Amino acid sequence: MKKKRISITDIANALNVTPSTVSRALNGGGKVSEKKRNEILALAKELGYRPNPIAKSLLENRTNTIGLIIPEFTHHFYSRMLAGIESVTSEAGYQLLICTSNENQAQEIKSTQTLLDARVDGILATISKMNDKFEHIQEEMDSGTPLVLVDRFSEEIETPYVISDDFKGAFSAVDYLCEIGCRNILHIKGPDNLSTTFNRFMGYKEALRKHEIELKEELLLESSDTNLLEKIRFCLTNHQVDGAFTYSDYLAFEIYKVASELNIPIPEQLSVIGYADEPISTYINPTLSTVNQQPFEMGAFGANYLLNKINNPEIALEIKNLETRLVIRGSCKGLEG
Amino acid sequence: MKKKRISITDIANALNVTPSTVSRALNGGGKVSEKKRNEILALAKELGYRPNPIAKSLLENRTNTIGLIIPEFTHHFYSRMLAGIESVTSEAGYQLLICTSNENQAQEIKSTQTLLDARVDGILATISKMNDKFEHIQEEMDSGTPLVLVDRFSEEIETPYVISDDFKGAFSAVDYLCEIGCRNILHIKGPDNLSTTFNRFMGYKEALRKHEIELKEELLLESSDTNLLEKIRFCLTNHQVDGAFTYSDYLAFEIYKVASELNIPIPEQLSVIGYADEPISTYINPTLSTVNQQPFEMGAFGANYLLNKINNPEIALEIKNLETRLVIRGSCKGLEG
Repeated sequence: MKKKRISITDIANALNVTPSTVSRALNGGGKVSEKKRNEILALAKELGYRPNPIAKSLLENRTNTIGLIIPEFTHHFYSRMLAGIESVTSEAGYQLLICTSNENQAQEIKSTQTLLDARVDGILATISKMNDKFEHIQEEMDSGTPLVLVDRFSEEIETPYVISDDFKGAFSAVDYLCEIGCRNILHIKGPDNLSTTFNRFMGYKEALRKHEIELKEELLLESSDTNLLEKIRFCLTNHQVDGAFTYSDYLAFEIYKVASELNIPIPEQLSVIGYADEPISTYINPTLSTVNQQPFEMGAFGANYLLNKINNPEIALEIKNLETRLVIRGSCKGLEG
Repeated sequence: MKKKRISITDIANALNVTPSTVSRALNGGGKVSEKKRNEILALAKELGYRPNPIAKSLLENRTNTIGLIIPEFTHHFYSRMLAGIESVTSEAGYQLLICTSNENQAQEIKSTQTLLDARVDGILATISKMNDKFEHIQEEMDSGTPLVLVDRFSEEIETPYVISDDFKGAFSAVDYLCEIGCRNILHIKGPDNLSTTFNRFMGYKEALRKHEIELKEELLLESSDTNLLEKIRFCLTNHQVDGAFTYSDYLAFEIYKVASELNIPIPEQLSVIGYADEPISTYINPTLSTVNQQPFEMGAFGANYLLNKINNPEIALEIKNLETRLVIRGSCKGLEG
């Protein structure tokens, strides 16, 4: 009788861990505790496990590099996300190759091609637009190179992703503004076509609905508006605005500028909440309340999902919707109103 | 008589341009004006120019990618430098592959290897330390891949570089503080081993010397000091500090915090100048005077030098020491004292 060849799955089942963990322990790749790694190596030896030569050769064909496509580096958010990614990839012995897309799809397509040409083992990407063309992403996946999306995703792309719960994040901010008594809450929306813009606006709407406050079109502004400062000025002057929730901390700073010009004191007359917990929120006066999205954790989860998929392409789809955290600082009056 | 084969140099001489310009015009690579390109193409056609097949094959061996090694992305300085680089490389049809070193030499060595493995056509690097080992840089240059250093350089590495005139930048800041009447000027130094730290300190010293102000050891602090805030507090309390010049804008913000705690008004009692013109300098109150280093221009010059060297490896060493610009904002009292 021919002896059955021992597979990674056999070892995984015996030790009640995932095949991906076994693969990583055997190949010295990802994060496996020392104890678990020793257990796996001992059992593999006992069972006479020998790596499948084809798999082995494929493994050795790796470049140990991971590609990262992000829109830009100006926002602290992406540098924190990068730090989270690096915390995982560098421990696993991977090098990162980074490309920026500048929110431009043609550039994103080129970046994808460049990373594939550099034979990266996998790609992490923050895609530049929603509801647009995804052929390049599909092509990348068809090439067999694992892909994980971070920060933004599209329902058209079936691949692991890690996003932040923008709906709940926005909801918690506007709910707070309502709780402290705001009734005319200005919202500055983000760039068109981004899932984050849409979800934050939905969170704003839902919080108003909960508090039975009517949505007023005149309190909605677009960040892309070339006359944004003027629109804010008009809004603050004519609509008794007592609260503001903005797509980003930078947009909140625009409100600060206009409020200061109009002698509207923050937070006494106007409470403001931004989004993303960028460093600017602690530099400005008063310090800005904001929604923290855990970008470091987002990067770390994304990198782990990608390593899992590199080590085990058949792994089930992993997705994560990270909790946000409302950070209340000097720009909001107290709960007592 | 065998007809002489027309070379790029012949065309260059005839049109009084560099061979590198001709090469770029013919290969559709770098920045050549439409007019110049047409002139070159017309003459090449007229003279029956045909590319040297070996040169052509070498040219076609290009990946049209450029590697960039920078310490990190947290500072706006590097994202501006990146924008400057991209403004040149994207127009020339090159893709950027970026690696971060986190100011860690082991990481920098790995990044260099990764970029060479990806067969980049050239590398732009902000080296992580001064007076340290440079074997990896030497190895990179020996491999024939052109290298240009940006922001920091070392006299041990003979390759084109673009830096900012840190000595003059610091001198102009401290000279200004002296001119408005400051006599006890605190200086917070940058990280050890960086040419920028050294040159800014030298500029500080030279400005004091010019104004015949004695250098006082007790007014010199180190940014790496774990008790920095306490040291600033001690300094402001005990040494009648009336001016401060810091290695970075972030360090200036530390002085703001302590001054506010001690009720020392800026600029009435204490004038402060930071360095780098980071966004924080316009967010804080009062807005911070600082030294602008033209990071966009630094990136653009560096990228141009690299393209020149890619297109013409024999080109003479190009170096640039960019002028800085003193930006006076609310943190300094007026010139009248």
